[in-house]
Amino acid sequence: MAPESAHVIATYLIETSLPLAQAAEVLAGEQSTGTFVRVERESDEVRARFAAQVESLTEVPLTGASALPGAVGDPALRRRAVLRLRFPLDNFGPSLPNLMAAVAGNLFEIKELAAIKLIDLDLPAAFTTRYSGPRFGVEGTRRLMSRPEGAMIGTIVKPSIGLTPEELGELVGELAQAGVDFIKDDELQGNGPHSPLESRVRAVMPVLQRHADRTGKMPMYAFNITDDIGRLEANHDLVVAAGGTCVMACVNLIGFAGLEFLHRHAEVPIHGHRTMLGALMRSEQVGIGFRAWQKIARLSGADHLHTNGISNKFYESDAEVLDSIAAVREPLLGIVPTVPVLSSGQWGGLAHATYEAVGTSDLLVLAGGGIHGHPDGAAAGVASMRAAWHSAERGESLDDALVASSELRRAVERFGPARV
Amino acid sequence: MAPESAHVIATYLIETSLPLAQAAEVLAGEQSTGTFVRVERESDEVRARFAAQVESLTEVPLTGASALPGAVGDPALRRRAVLRLRFPLDNFGPSLPNLMAAVAGNLFEIKELAAIKLIDLDLPAAFTTRYSGPRFGVEGTRRLMSRPEGAMIGTIVKPSIGLTPEELGELVGELAQAGVDFIKDDELQGNGPHSPLESRVRAVMPVLQRHADRTGKMPMYAFNITDDIGRLEANHDLVVAAGGTCVMACVNLIGFAGLEFLHRHAEVPIHGHRTMLGALMRSEQVGIGFRAWQKIARLSGADHLHTNGISNKFYESDAEVLDSIAAVREPLLGIVPTVPVLSSGQWGGLAHATYEAVGTSDLLVLAGGGIHGHPDGAAAGVASMRAAWHSAERGESLDDALVASSELRRAVERFGPARV
Repeated sequence: MAPESAHVIATYLIETSLPLAQAAEVLAGEQSTGTFVRVERESDEVRARFAAQVESLTEVPLTGASALPGAVGDPALRRRAVLRLRFPLDNFGPSLPNLMAAVAGNLFEIKELAAIKLIDLDLPAAFTTRYSGPRFGVEGTRRLMSRPEGAMIGTIVKPSIGLTPEELGELVGELAQAGVDFIKDDELQGNGPHSPLESRVRAVMPVLQRHADRTGKMPMYAFNITDDIGRLEANHDLVVAAGGTCVMACVNLIGFAGLEFLHRHAEVPIHGHRTMLGALMRSEQVGIGFRAWQKIARLSGADHLHTNGISNKFYESDAEVLDSIAAVREPLLGIVPTVPVLSSGQWGGLAHATYEAVGTSDLLVLAGGGIHGHPDGAAAGVASMRAAWHSAERGESLDDALVASSELRRAVERFGPARV
Repeated sequence: MAPESAHVIATYLIETSLPLAQAAEVLAGEQSTGTFVRVERESDEVRARFAAQVESLTEVPLTGASALPGAVGDPALRRRAVLRLRFPLDNFGPSLPNLMAAVAGNLFEIKELAAIKLIDLDLPAAFTTRYSGPRFGVEGTRRLMSRPEGAMIGTIVKPSIGLTPEELGELVGELAQAGVDFIKDDELQGNGPHSPLESRVRAVMPVLQRHADRTGKMPMYAFNITDDIGRLEANHDLVVAAGGTCVMACVNLIGFAGLEFLHRHAEVPIHGHRTMLGALMRSEQVGIGFRAWQKIARLSGADHLHTNGISNKFYESDAEVLDSIAAVREPLLGIVPTVPVLSSGQWGGLAHATYEAVGTSDLLVLAGGGIHGHPDGAAAGVASMRAAWHSAERGESLDDALVASSELRRAVERFGPARV
């Protein structure tokens, strides 16, 4: 209880029709010692030691979004604020699931709040005594896919589901030949009876091995091993035994806890897919924002983490996507850096704008349609992306790249215009 | 592919400024075979076999809630509908994590949708070949707590955190003496250094054993064993080895997959806490509703599941709470019935109104403040709740109960008025 004792700071966006400071105290109380009446043994000393404390409270403008259902108070009095709460680490210890009970538990149901979204977490070093973060990250991924520098270019198997294992093997051969660094299962391709994981591994790995024997380079294939916890280890082992170099897990579907469990066992990078995150993140008024979410996912061992990309086909603005990419690249308690994965609507014409905004090529850039749908086929699709990224990394303009690469020009014809 | 082949039907609330039918097709496509352009090997046959199909689409009135961020289209054209989509089971097989990728994956991020909330799931029997549901449920819980009929009355340790294990033992002795059927750790009490699970088990179980030796009845204590997956089994075993009869897990913090993992190992009922659910459920515009959520939790093995109670301190209306209780009580693929857990602001004065609305006493009714905060102490708090529930179950009026029970009258003085 010395002032320097370890603590967590959680940052929220809140709205309320109560005085802001009063709403902040309701929130702090619910997440520490509270019930609806003060009870025996709830001494001032207990409150002082265990209750969350308001660290700062800064009013910000309302966004125009409507209040959450059940919010009480006069709507005309509603105000929005950024609230930082300090929680003593001793309340939960360095346990991510129990941390979440405190910083992201019942508070979302508080009726005094018309908005309540967890947007960031500052965690003390104590968490790294239990959670070691990614084992491979940027460097390990580059090494395993033999791509020591430049953007890592990858693709997703399309159509998402419906290919037989034989068709998948054929497609993977074409994609490897096309020069991709990385291929992934779609998140919809789990372990269904039509194309079981084992059949996919058997169909894909010999193709990749033959490609590696011929070229000295094996693209990384992220097999989606998402399933019940009791199946994750066997699924992983199946991939590794066949020479696979990556497994994909849908973080929200196995849970952070499932990811952490898998990480303890994993001998290859874990490709962390974010599917279902929109359910938690899209509302401005409730849920958990990407900055907070990605910290837990990285500590839990995600080597790659989906951030979306600019000009994507989903709801996020470029500013939000760029903030997500920046968040994943920020240092976190000294753990190995996770690779941001850019996907959704990506193609060569976005390379210059992305590189200018992000300032790094330590990225895994995935194009589904942008490669499979290139008018001259997948090889031209990969060539168009590689040419664009090389050009951007060398500091050339998009126009230079268009002059130099016929594949990029053809991509512009189909997917354009390019972003400058 | 026969018309009778197994499938899942997912029900959504959607809003869009596109023609409703077009938005429904975008959603179906994203969750089956789609990318942003049609690709090679995406034959009409593949689409027909694997794509989700619109089962029904029924317009409903807008609620007045604002559109989700990033929604495209003319706001004046926005409409709301209930959409039922049919997914072939073959796409994912009877795997709950992989089911979720299909029915609750990227669809929340679709910009053509101004609202998108998964509100229900109809699952085929195939899921019970893998997921067997609760092992104890209503009957097993009643047996273990020696409460063969009538509402099961329980309480939560308060203050939530801050008691030493010694104080906890003392409090539990008082609560057992007061006649509760059930006591639970607060969800904020995990396995922190201040009051580790092992110390709590050591402090609580001898007290309960002595009480049982004296009275022949041992209240069920739900120890919160929420933690990393790799710790759940040992935490469970610690409780069981000490004679404990229940473990509590925060479903959203260990994930459905973590719950299912725990269930495979558990020898006592699993008390499923719903903390963090508000992040997914509170918005009308995005997320996952309680009806859908509780089906997955029950299949994953939750013996008890928090539904909230009427007149609660959180945001939910009585109608929503009653729908949640009804949902948990609906038959589900023949699995053992889960016990609905009513909590938050509960006290004796809510018994008649609750019983009238719910029509059963196969409920676990938890009062924190309503027992600990009773003006004459916990025993009077329990007596007031027991009297009120007995009265309601016998078909008496609230007035009858008030005449008969001085403890209930005193509760009304503190917490009243009672609900009729």
